[in-house]
Amino acid sequence: MTSISAVQTRLHQHRQQFPALANKTYFNYGGQGPMPQGAMNAMTQAQAHMQYIGPFGYDAYIWIIQEKQAMKEAIASELHVPLETITLTENVTVGCNIAMWGIDWHPGDHMLLSDCEHPGIIATAQEIARRFSVEVTTCPLMATLNEGDSVTAIAQHLRPNTRLVILSHVFWNTGQVLPLDKIVEVCRDKKSLVLVDAAQSAGLLPLNLSELGADFYAFTGHKWLCGPAGLGGLYIRPGARESLQPTFIGLRGVVVDSQGQPVTWQSDGRKYEISTSAFPLYVGLKEAIAIHQQWGTPEERYQQICHNSEYLWQGLAALSDVKCLRTAPPESGIVSFQLIQQEPQASLRLVQFLESQRIFTRTIADPNCIRATVHYFTLESEIDLLVEQVQKFCQT
Amino acid sequence: MTSISAVQTRLHQHRQQFPALANKTYFNYGGQGPMPQGAMNAMTQAQAHMQYIGPFGYDAYIWIIQEKQAMKEAIASELHVPLETITLTENVTVGCNIAMWGIDWHPGDHMLLSDCEHPGIIATAQEIARRFSVEVTTCPLMATLNEGDSVTAIAQHLRPNTRLVILSHVFWNTGQVLPLDKIVEVCRDKKSLVLVDAAQSAGLLPLNLSELGADFYAFTGHKWLCGPAGLGGLYIRPGARESLQPTFIGLRGVVVDSQGQPVTWQSDGRKYEISTSAFPLYVGLKEAIAIHQQWGTPEERYQQICHNSEYLWQGLAALSDVKCLRTAPPESGIVSFQLIQQEPQASLRLVQFLESQRIFTRTIADPNCIRATVHYFTLESEIDLLVEQVQKFCQT
Repeated sequence: MTSISAVQTRLHQHRQQFPALANKTYFNYGGQGPMPQGAMNAMTQAQAHMQYIGPFGYDAYIWIIQEKQAMKEAIASELHVPLETITLTENVTVGCNIAMWGIDWHPGDHMLLSDCEHPGIIATAQEIARRFSVEVTTCPLMATLNEGDSVTAIAQHLRPNTRLVILSHVFWNTGQVLPLDKIVEVCRDKKSLVLVDAAQSAGLLPLNLSELGADFYAFTGHKWLCGPAGLGGLYIRPGARESLQPTFIGLRGVVVDSQGQPVTWQSDGRKYEISTSAFPLYVGLKEAIAIHQQWGTPEERYQQICHNSEYLWQGLAALSDVKCLRTAPPESGIVSFQLIQQEPQASLRLVQFLESQRIFTRTIADPNCIRATVHYFTLESEIDLLVEQVQKFCQT
Repeated sequence: MTSISAVQTRLHQHRQQFPALANKTYFNYGGQGPMPQGAMNAMTQAQAHMQYIGPFGYDAYIWIIQEKQAMKEAIASELHVPLETITLTENVTVGCNIAMWGIDWHPGDHMLLSDCEHPGIIATAQEIARRFSVEVTTCPLMATLNEGDSVTAIAQHLRPNTRLVILSHVFWNTGQVLPLDKIVEVCRDKKSLVLVDAAQSAGLLPLNLSELGADFYAFTGHKWLCGPAGLGGLYIRPGARESLQPTFIGLRGVVVDSQGQPVTWQSDGRKYEISTSAFPLYVGLKEAIAIHQQWGTPEERYQQICHNSEYLWQGLAALSDVKCLRTAPPESGIVSFQLIQQEPQASLRLVQFLESQRIFTRTIADPNCIRATVHYFTLESEIDLLVEQVQKFCQT
């Protein structure tokens, strides 16, 4: 077994690749991950290369196809999925929208959301409800953070006409990790499709989506994977592709005949892709994933994340003025906590106080709390500093 | 009046800013414009700056808002529109999809497309037709390139239940410029909304969208404006915003309450924006527009484009083996032409022959032709070379 100090030394070296970490103490991986310098350099070079070979012509066309393929391979190796199951998107929200709008909704159909979903997804569900006379209800899972059973809660809220269940694999507010395999089983029994918001799980949890069985898994490259903002994807289970219609549609999703007329959909994940993207981002995400894989396997990274979040959780739990939302060590890199006897704006004031010390966290509205996230390359010394400054804030 | 050689000298200097132009003869502005080095540098610096100040935190949040504002101002100054009418999108196709899916379709409604629209738009129309039992028909405008009247043709194809008319301002295949002001008038009389695919007009034509009166105008920054791929926008006429519902929805489009619950839409163009984008692209497009504006006004640039396209048209028209689609000088920067007595693959072979000489053009499927596009900074010597090489190909 490697000693703790040896790990910390190795992390110090690894972190040199992330310039964002040089001038601050960062706990906002759940908002956006810092990019490795190598990934940024690769993007700059890709941009220049496209100008050299194009930007529009046969060579540029081939270059985009090759880089897209290489980047999809990098994603596929992290998620354990076949390449053709991946649809590239601009972000998680677009991925969720593709799944939500692609279902053949009928009046009276039911859609079930957990009570910890992102506002963008809630708003989409409400608009679908309005347009297609679909009923949307919420399943209370926030209360299962420390006790109770999320699987049973979902089972109780499924209806015979529940067409779609929307859940986050890791809740963005509390950091709770859902037992997705069991949930998928329950939903499949009821013939409900399952859409997973993976904003906080891709790059955090070790994943094997082929085994997990969720129908739709919407992820992004710019949070835990530390890729560039503006590139994510949607995994679609092969068996679910036939039943999911494209909504926003463009040239990337269709096959055209010799007259340029669209005749059918692409037979793989491109079916739901639209049109021109910022192609240099492909190279950036590929490089970012490679740097994580150089450090360790997804399992090794997750183990280190849990080590770090437990260390932070223990440090915060020891403070008399702080209450961690979790009563046991977190199962993700998300540590959410509240200030005891707080006045209404206390969370915001703490985050601002910390940011003035160049320590980056964020507030969450529901439940009202402060969220600090740790990655595998977070240092124990950073966590010590955060705990120390939270204590300092509470004492003033 | 400036002498022609003085203009060419000034253009030589201006072109130094575009590295893509240094090693090739480029006629694919309608596919993707070359980026100025200054715009690429600005993007690299923006990426680094976001790492320095964030990437996620209060300073980064403010930086994105400011850069978004500055870039929207640059767009607004080109299109002559108020800032709040602009929705940012990933590309033209997304902009068209926002308009097409946002209408409250009823069974039996009618949608009218020109016969020169892009395959992605045709496929979207077909899917909307399927989902909402809407009828889609095509208005033959390709035949009005040289004679006939597009306004009359559209008037004849409008029905009492035509909810939406979809047209390109400049046809991507033939380069025809539609008299959009007159078309809008005819459509407004019949209470039909007008969606304009502006892929080939934004950055080519001098535009005043507020005067033009079209309801939806979907553009991109990466073609005639020479910005980065992956950033475009949709102008929505203020009077049309209330009736257009968002479809793909995310945090950028909604207003949330203190509990983080979505309660209403943003009151401006953000209503249709979704979520995280590649924010450094904002800086790239702003810089690209500034470089065009340094050279001249939109009117001056358009005048030079027409000068160049007439010069190319004349050169090609003088070749005995070539037939330009237009019988008079083009009104846009698009010059489409055919080879007389061509065997089926002749267009493709010519494009490949030219690309082997590092001269970049493209084929078009319908009508079967070769498309060469000229920008204001295209040199007469480049046009001479293209004409010479086309002639050479025809003689072998």
